[in-house]
Amino acid sequence: MPHPNDPKLRSFIDVAPDSHFPIQNLPYGVFSAKDGLAPRVGVAIGDYVLDLWQLAQDCRFDVVEPAVFAAPQLNPFMALGPKVWSSTRARISELLRHDHPELRDNEALRKRALVPMTDVKLHIPFAVSGYTDFYSSKEHATNVGVMFRGKDNALQPNWLHMPIGYNGRASTVVVSGTPVRRPRGQLKPPTADVPSFGPCKRLDFELEMGVVVGQPSVMGEMLTEKQAEEMIFGFVILNDWSARDVQQWEYVPLGPFQAKVFATSISPWVVTREALEPFRLHGPVQDPKPLLYLQQTQPNNYDMALEVDLRAAQMSAPKNISRTNFKYMYWSSVQQLVHHAACGCAMNVGDLLGSGTISGPEKDQRGSLLEISWNGTEPVELVEGVKRSFLEDGDSLVMRGWCQGAGYRVGFGEVEGTITPSE
Amino acid sequence: MPHPNDPKLRSFIDVAPDSHFPIQNLPYGVFSAKDGLAPRVGVAIGDYVLDLWQLAQDCRFDVVEPAVFAAPQLNPFMALGPKVWSSTRARISELLRHDHPELRDNEALRKRALVPMTDVKLHIPFAVSGYTDFYSSKEHATNVGVMFRGKDNALQPNWLHMPIGYNGRASTVVVSGTPVRRPRGQLKPPTADVPSFGPCKRLDFELEMGVVVGQPSVMGEMLTEKQAEEMIFGFVILNDWSARDVQQWEYVPLGPFQAKVFATSISPWVVTREALEPFRLHGPVQDPKPLLYLQQTQPNNYDMALEVDLRAAQMSAPKNISRTNFKYMYWSSVQQLVHHAACGCAMNVGDLLGSGTISGPEKDQRGSLLEISWNGTEPVELVEGVKRSFLEDGDSLVMRGWCQGAGYRVGFGEVEGTITPSE
Repeated sequence: MPHPNDPKLRSFIDVAPDSHFPIQNLPYGVFSAKDGLAPRVGVAIGDYVLDLWQLAQDCRFDVVEPAVFAAPQLNPFMALGPKVWSSTRARISELLRHDHPELRDNEALRKRALVPMTDVKLHIPFAVSGYTDFYSSKEHATNVGVMFRGKDNALQPNWLHMPIGYNGRASTVVVSGTPVRRPRGQLKPPTADVPSFGPCKRLDFELEMGVVVGQPSVMGEMLTEKQAEEMIFGFVILNDWSARDVQQWEYVPLGPFQAKVFATSISPWVVTREALEPFRLHGPVQDPKPLLYLQQTQPNNYDMALEVDLRAAQMSAPKNISRTNFKYMYWSSVQQLVHHAACGCAMNVGDLLGSGTISGPEKDQRGSLLEISWNGTEPVELVEGVKRSFLEDGDSLVMRGWCQGAGYRVGFGEVEGTITPSE
Repeated sequence: MPHPNDPKLRSFIDVAPDSHFPIQNLPYGVFSAKDGLAPRVGVAIGDYVLDLWQLAQDCRFDVVEPAVFAAPQLNPFMALGPKVWSSTRARISELLRHDHPELRDNEALRKRALVPMTDVKLHIPFAVSGYTDFYSSKEHATNVGVMFRGKDNALQPNWLHMPIGYNGRASTVVVSGTPVRRPRGQLKPPTADVPSFGPCKRLDFELEMGVVVGQPSVMGEMLTEKQAEEMIFGFVILNDWSARDVQQWEYVPLGPFQAKVFATSISPWVVTREALEPFRLHGPVQDPKPLLYLQQTQPNNYDMALEVDLRAAQMSAPKNISRTNFKYMYWSSVQQLVHHAACGCAMNVGDLLGSGTISGPEKDQRGSLLEISWNGTEPVELVEGVKRSFLEDGDSLVMRGWCQGAGYRVGFGEVEGTITPSE
């Protein structure tokens, strides 16, 4: 049987070359359709969603019970572990291949199991157990450091020694398309003597990738590079919405809290680690050499194109405001997970690890408006007369990401959020 | 029917005056017994656990289905809301009253439903949805500030304006009695040029109370004082174990992370907010006056005695190292919850909010070894020849808390943790 990542594979379903969902991808999500059935697990293929519950009921999987795919979240499937993830993906690939008649020639099953994507509603793909946010792009940390502390003290002393991160709030992780209400909070601009409470005036996005942890670890136990890697089920695109003015006033000494808890948006599709294998590469050279527990023997970064579009309510089309790449990350997802467990923290199925804002070395590769507008001093022009330093009500922000193969793209679709007013 | 908080109530079960579990308390927990049945919900009364599932099966509750008490966590019961919490407690109080024959005179039911506490194993009482840790004792924040920044800059500028807090890690909240393995982490003492990785050398406890949130809030919506109060199901004692050396190196700029994620211990009994009603009082005067959304019209503090005992492996009996009171907290639990939701954060059933270390104005009222030993400069003598600046392997730490009524105590039992070696 050919490997499901084989670039030569074709599906009997037509997939455009710029689609994010060729047969080499097969990302998992949770959807509901017009049939009125409860949300369940599906896989994206071209412009369709493949209903895994329908296939499982029809006995098309040896190992996985239909109930696993009838769940409104990927957690029960993820709990089955990497071998089942891999064999299930191989089986789905086989069922969708143009030269495999089983599903292709079974019209009744095709009608039940293939739902046009235009007819589905996509839900949050997994129950988020814990959400942790890292800060692992050297370019981003440097930009922020230069803005607030000057060029000579840009990076904090600990930054080059460990993936700095903090616990985020799992209860407000939402799926693409969920409107984001402008948060209110305590604000104290440098010019004010006392704080006031009101709508955030410096609302920002952060372009991140999210690791989806699919296997648990034992409380008190450390992880090796290999163990951490095998616990990663897949990735999502993640928008870590941020209230910069709230953050500035609250964050000393315990870190960001209310500035980040109001919403975090993720893509509806989880692209598996296996589907991203062909696009692995080594990250930047790490100097100083990390401590032993953080050292890597494998390439743990990914060559993944990322872009951000912004559309104000009065614009007819969105404007691109950033194009960058996941490959720039200084600390890899594997290093983040190893560090997270190093003190004895138990990891759970459904944990989500944000990479931190992904900025590249060039000016047009910045992953937040704070950097793009250089803290408001260089507003970005979207169309004539429409400038942005931070997000305004009605603004719609879209992130996209994909890995480019030979004639196909392994992508995430998009994560969209529109800002609604505070009141 | 007399109110379940009536000081004159007596149970047909003998309860010693210094017991934490008189009929005026009725705290909820999750237990398993020698019968081999799965963990389920019970209430502490004197030296017994009352098996609510057995009572419910025997149709002793109008409103609550037996399945709610058959769960290995309080979450399904908490989800039923404050009216059910109150009516259930009233019904349990009635069933346990000395002048109510229903259970008292039903020997068969008594045998099934009353389990000696010596025969039960206590489990974590609820599934922790999100864990948030605050920093709301002015005495604690001042002590820490004086140690690290000097007397004149002890409190950060934001501290008097909001309950400072950060997201903690829910996956490692454990019940009293769970051993705590000494965490490993990155350490960089001021004398070292580069960090190293190894066992924490400055392991500490933090005496806290934990609020157990029993009702959800809507994402994007703020809470009033009244709404926040009604969402609080009850309280636990909480030990926020801390690796001070890990924290010192990692915490700038995103706050404590690995220093706190390795374990958080809570008491097995959740004392209901209703049982604590008679012990409410006003907290310290807040100056400056808080912003409108944080203002209080009711007394939201509690007169609750707290004590900490420490026993090194070579000691035959524990030594008391702190006696303080929950009433000293500057920011109340209600203010913490209001602030938590203010930016739009959705609260969930099972959220746990740590109060922050509870220190009082006197030297013997400090709630952490960092303060007791004044950052290691004044080690505390436990017995002759045994001193502690921080915790050592084999040390057992016990926290206790109770409110003193007229001839009875409404208490939490204890939260114990023993330090085991790193390897």
